[in-house]
Amino acid sequence: MSDQSRSKDAYAQAGVDIASGNEAVARYKQVLGAWRHPDQLDAIGGFGGLFRLPGGGDRALVASTDGVGTKILIAAELERYDTVGADLVNHCVNDILVVNATPVFFLDYFATGKLDPTIAAAVVGGCAQACRAHNCALLGGETAEMPGLYAPKHFDLAGTIVGSVDIADVPNPQSVEPGDAIVGLPAIGLHTNGYSLARALLPREEWDELLAPHPSYYSAVRAIQAVARVKTMAHITGGGLLENVPRTLPPNAKAIFEAARWSVPAIMLELVRRGNLSYEEKYRTLNMGIGYTLIVPLAYATKAAAAVPGAKVVGWIERRDGDEPQVVIHEPR
Amino acid sequence: MSDQSRSKDAYAQAGVDIASGNEAVARYKQVLGAWRHPDQLDAIGGFGGLFRLPGGGDRALVASTDGVGTKILIAAELERYDTVGADLVNHCVNDILVVNATPVFFLDYFATGKLDPTIAAAVVGGCAQACRAHNCALLGGETAEMPGLYAPKHFDLAGTIVGSVDIADVPNPQSVEPGDAIVGLPAIGLHTNGYSLARALLPREEWDELLAPHPSYYSAVRAIQAVARVKTMAHITGGGLLENVPRTLPPNAKAIFEAARWSVPAIMLELVRRGNLSYEEKYRTLNMGIGYTLIVPLAYATKAAAAVPGAKVVGWIERRDGDEPQVVIHEPR
Repeated sequence: MSDQSRSKDAYAQAGVDIASGNEAVARYKQVLGAWRHPDQLDAIGGFGGLFRLPGGGDRALVASTDGVGTKILIAAELERYDTVGADLVNHCVNDILVVNATPVFFLDYFATGKLDPTIAAAVVGGCAQACRAHNCALLGGETAEMPGLYAPKHFDLAGTIVGSVDIADVPNPQSVEPGDAIVGLPAIGLHTNGYSLARALLPREEWDELLAPHPSYYSAVRAIQAVARVKTMAHITGGGLLENVPRTLPPNAKAIFEAARWSVPAIMLELVRRGNLSYEEKYRTLNMGIGYTLIVPLAYATKAAAAVPGAKVVGWIERRDGDEPQVVIHEPR
Repeated sequence: MSDQSRSKDAYAQAGVDIASGNEAVARYKQVLGAWRHPDQLDAIGGFGGLFRLPGGGDRALVASTDGVGTKILIAAELERYDTVGADLVNHCVNDILVVNATPVFFLDYFATGKLDPTIAAAVVGGCAQACRAHNCALLGGETAEMPGLYAPKHFDLAGTIVGSVDIADVPNPQSVEPGDAIVGLPAIGLHTNGYSLARALLPREEWDELLAPHPSYYSAVRAIQAVARVKTMAHITGGGLLENVPRTLPPNAKAIFEAARWSVPAIMLELVRRGNLSYEEKYRTLNMGIGYTLIVPLAYATKAAAAVPGAKVVGWIERRDGDEPQVVIHEPR
């Protein structure tokens, strides 16, 4: 058995089936393809949906729904309820930031088996703080008590963000060309991906650091945009560099990363070691230290990276021939 | 033990604690009260959050997040995956209809223990159909596979709707006055409330009819508004007539319902009988046959009810003194 298939087994054994996810997306396209609202705009890369408001002129609304994933099982197990709210809001902020949107309002969905008002307030309070940090209204939410679906101490948390953007400012992958540079923003930890794998590989005593927060890249991106022309951006979430960066490229371009240019958080190296994860597996399941990427013309690369602490030039764009992989990561020997 | 406390026990034994829910809401107010976005408008009755778009003129966005509740446990048990999507979308449509909003776009959140693409497509396809029926874009969504949180065949479904409304058209509870009539729109079944109770009281062989859909009242309300002045409206969801109608009244008004004026679906009478539910319990946990209420000046009452099949004049508004209950339901002897 090759490393690759072995590592896929490792992730599948942790209970997450990437193939099923991709098939579900394909089925959704069939289901949804039949009809599309005329004011719906092409959602570049699919990070957030764009909608032109009737009478809204040249601005569009951008919306995205997401959850925290099984990071909440770690939070529930460790009885830490104040961090997942910010994880969720920051994740959503980053998702719509990719289409250059500024957050406008957010709504949360908190569901649990047995409603504990103290826990609920801690979770929603975490959302509220992160919203405020982005001048984003926490416009509403739903708290659901569902015995029989959730174990008494378990809960799920999801949220929907709505932002707005000038349609002219929506990044266009067609603008990306060979020679452009890739600037990477550092990840603090797993953020909100790879937790089913992490729970399977790490003993409970080592779970604490898994709760390291999912940061918002909003200020960092705006700081870079103030000094550099930014062509496209990717939020490195589920699917890692391998699946998220291609969403920001034209079909005839590929992204080359030099892994020696950034440092991988120790927790991820540990997961790679314990799970004996292959190249495919680690760069698809984990962010491997890069939380957000920006593609800039080479002339802006140094200035862009200098604008934000920890930002680094981590790769470049090359011409892609035929069906070459769209992302290649050169690892140090 | 009085009937009332007994019935509260019945619902609490089904695993849903209304007191915890109310306490959570109170805690949220503390958590959120510290800051409010300046463009956030008063959310009348709290059915949906209102937000004035920068540069949006006299229109506001209205957003609401909701779930299907434990109705999904019935769907999962009966392996019926095509109906809960419409339940969710219609529920959300009705929630923002209360502030007179027209749906613009919707996003779904589907979470499960083991992702089955066929089931996922059936659920999301149900959302898509109901969205299309309202000319509402299904702008995005999230599909999450979370082993350990959900049992393999279990899933949760939540959604967020965004609509728009002319701020001048947002109903004002202060306009309601003694002598106004209440028009009720008929409920098909439980809609999306009372399912924890229903699962506890009904044997599995009788669950099929529990999946009767949550209808959209959008067309009915617009038909009534075409012939009558409508002052305020309530979507009768969790909390029933007792908790939802007060949200549409000024403090010095009370709503009197004559239960003899409408018919209660047999399924609800059966639940009342089996659970020996008190007055408080049945009108707080179940819709008892009224899915949506509209308060209209008396002069419009007959015309309003005639505009929609099944709509009936079900009550009227009286002056409320001191701390009298805001909703009184006269039951036939």
